[in-house]
Amino acid sequence: MSPTAHERLARALAGEAVDRVPAWLMRQAGRYLPEYREVRARVSFLELCRDADLACEVTIQPLDRFPLDAAIVFSDILTVPEALGQPVEFTAGHGPVLADPVRDRAGIAALRRGQGHLPVAAETIRRFRAARPEVPILGFAGAPLTLLFYMVEGSGSRDWVHAKRFLYADPEAARQLLDLLADVVGEHLQAQVEAGAAAVQLFDTWAGALPAEDVRRFALPAAARALSHVRGAPRIYFAKDAAPFVASLPEVGAEAYGVDGRMDLAEARRALGDLPVQGNLDPVLLHAPRDTIVARTRAVLEAGGGRGHVFNLGHGLLPTTPIEGVQAMLETVRAWRPPGAA
Amino acid sequence: MSPTAHERLARALAGEAVDRVPAWLMRQAGRYLPEYREVRARVSFLELCRDADLACEVTIQPLDRFPLDAAIVFSDILTVPEALGQPVEFTAGHGPVLADPVRDRAGIAALRRGQGHLPVAAETIRRFRAARPEVPILGFAGAPLTLLFYMVEGSGSRDWVHAKRFLYADPEAARQLLDLLADVVGEHLQAQVEAGAAAVQLFDTWAGALPAEDVRRFALPAAARALSHVRGAPRIYFAKDAAPFVASLPEVGAEAYGVDGRMDLAEARRALGDLPVQGNLDPVLLHAPRDTIVARTRAVLEAGGGRGHVFNLGHGLLPTTPIEGVQAMLETVRAWRPPGAA
Repeated sequence: MSPTAHERLARALAGEAVDRVPAWLMRQAGRYLPEYREVRARVSFLELCRDADLACEVTIQPLDRFPLDAAIVFSDILTVPEALGQPVEFTAGHGPVLADPVRDRAGIAALRRGQGHLPVAAETIRRFRAARPEVPILGFAGAPLTLLFYMVEGSGSRDWVHAKRFLYADPEAARQLLDLLADVVGEHLQAQVEAGAAAVQLFDTWAGALPAEDVRRFALPAAARALSHVRGAPRIYFAKDAAPFVASLPEVGAEAYGVDGRMDLAEARRALGDLPVQGNLDPVLLHAPRDTIVARTRAVLEAGGGRGHVFNLGHGLLPTTPIEGVQAMLETVRAWRPPGAA
Repeated sequence: MSPTAHERLARALAGEAVDRVPAWLMRQAGRYLPEYREVRARVSFLELCRDADLACEVTIQPLDRFPLDAAIVFSDILTVPEALGQPVEFTAGHGPVLADPVRDRAGIAALRRGQGHLPVAAETIRRFRAARPEVPILGFAGAPLTLLFYMVEGSGSRDWVHAKRFLYADPEAARQLLDLLADVVGEHLQAQVEAGAAAVQLFDTWAGALPAEDVRRFALPAAARALSHVRGAPRIYFAKDAAPFVASLPEVGAEAYGVDGRMDLAEARRALGDLPVQGNLDPVLLHAPRDTIVARTRAVLEAGGGRGHVFNLGHGLLPTTPIEGVQAMLETVRAWRPPGAA
């Protein structure tokens, strides 16, 4: 008897044998899908994140198209700064802009801990569980360091001068903010687990912008504190550009680690002491010819070894990603069998 | 008797003992300097790159301010696409824009190999050698893969979708373009050596945007081919974000390897089989308080071990870099003595 999708994902994240490698994709509900763009023609990104019905609808969209083994709740990492009193806007082509960037201890003291739109994610998970009980859904949150970067910089950045200066100028204040964020993030993840999330992922998109030494000093302990609040579901930690500190990742204490598309998956696995991994096809490869997509998808599966591996991209799907490329990749994953599997 | 600056740099790049670690900085002539901004108020960036007198003037500027041990010729990596018939413009705030991006074999066939403004770099080096014979000057060029990325994408990019698609859709055509670029780049570097460059650096800014497998397939062989044209001066290869493929870097066959600010320098050195390294203080650290700058500079020097190490940043100086930060760092380097040095 085949395991259920819930069992398959749980086994992969526990490093146990599976009949086949489960797959989900970062940003699998997104602009590359015409049905998503149709919803977004009516409501803004933030409105979508704030409406559990609509968020549930777009969470389901990719499942109706592709052979996916899990969903991820549609939400945004910046609901946390917002719940702390820092309003967020999205400007076309420029990404998020956060009002009143935190630049010093007074900025931290001005934060007010509230709920804001945080409960929408758990509510979306509840609706999804009612609509698609057979499909596991992941909850998620931004990692403390990544949230600090946005809150201090006030927007995305190439160099993160304000954010890094804040860390270097007053490490104690930075740790205070990271602790606060870790607790809010951890409780937010736990609320998603209690709503029925089968697993949670902590996204540390910008940790890799720091020297490895500072990642170990600031990012990893804060991520560990956030995950320490989570009980009852496996926890995945994903840091982009983590090659300089991959061997230190286990300090986070997660059950599995996301690997970006630049690292060799087999090497990352070795550096992690064979802990379960998730990844790691470069999303831009989905713009390649079909044969290349199939060959490179197989190479990722071989590198993952078929055990303790959840297939994913190395980063989120792009608005330009061709749908037929996603399909070719996921059909390849679905057809592949781990060594020794029936 | 102290060695000359020429001897000190040559010894460091050869892995031999030195009295102190020599230092130069990527983008040491640049917008963070008021005297550079003064020149740029009169002429555009491209005009500056095309005028050997002015280029020599700004090449010298940082030497008059800081205890630096080498200069790097003021020039731009995009003189190579321009010499191949692809005009380049710089738009305020958006970086370079290249006309008629190369997207297929017809685009490659349309390239015409000329000299364009390439000779200005060697001419600038000759003038510098006449003006400051005691200071070694580095020549440089963009690495083939990085130039291909700009030529195909037509501009800088976060995701490099066009450039990567080009590599994946027609690897043979990509190799043909990389070979052409390697030969043009190699001859350009050799012309700079013949003009008196004490060393050359090949900048592979975007290699790290590729999966490690593709770096080994495309970027490193092309860089090796470019450097194979260079005789008579040590060659430094600098790839940003190289942690996923650091152990493969020696395939390039350079004398020394630049290390970005994210990697631990000592770890990188070990992965490189103890080849000479250059780097690697995160340039954003120069925005930190003075004590932090001094401590982190010393940590880089300790990690470098005082032998086979040229001090540098992990990436270029930023327009926002405080001059007093640069001064504090360079004074720290100048005062530090390698273990066992007199």
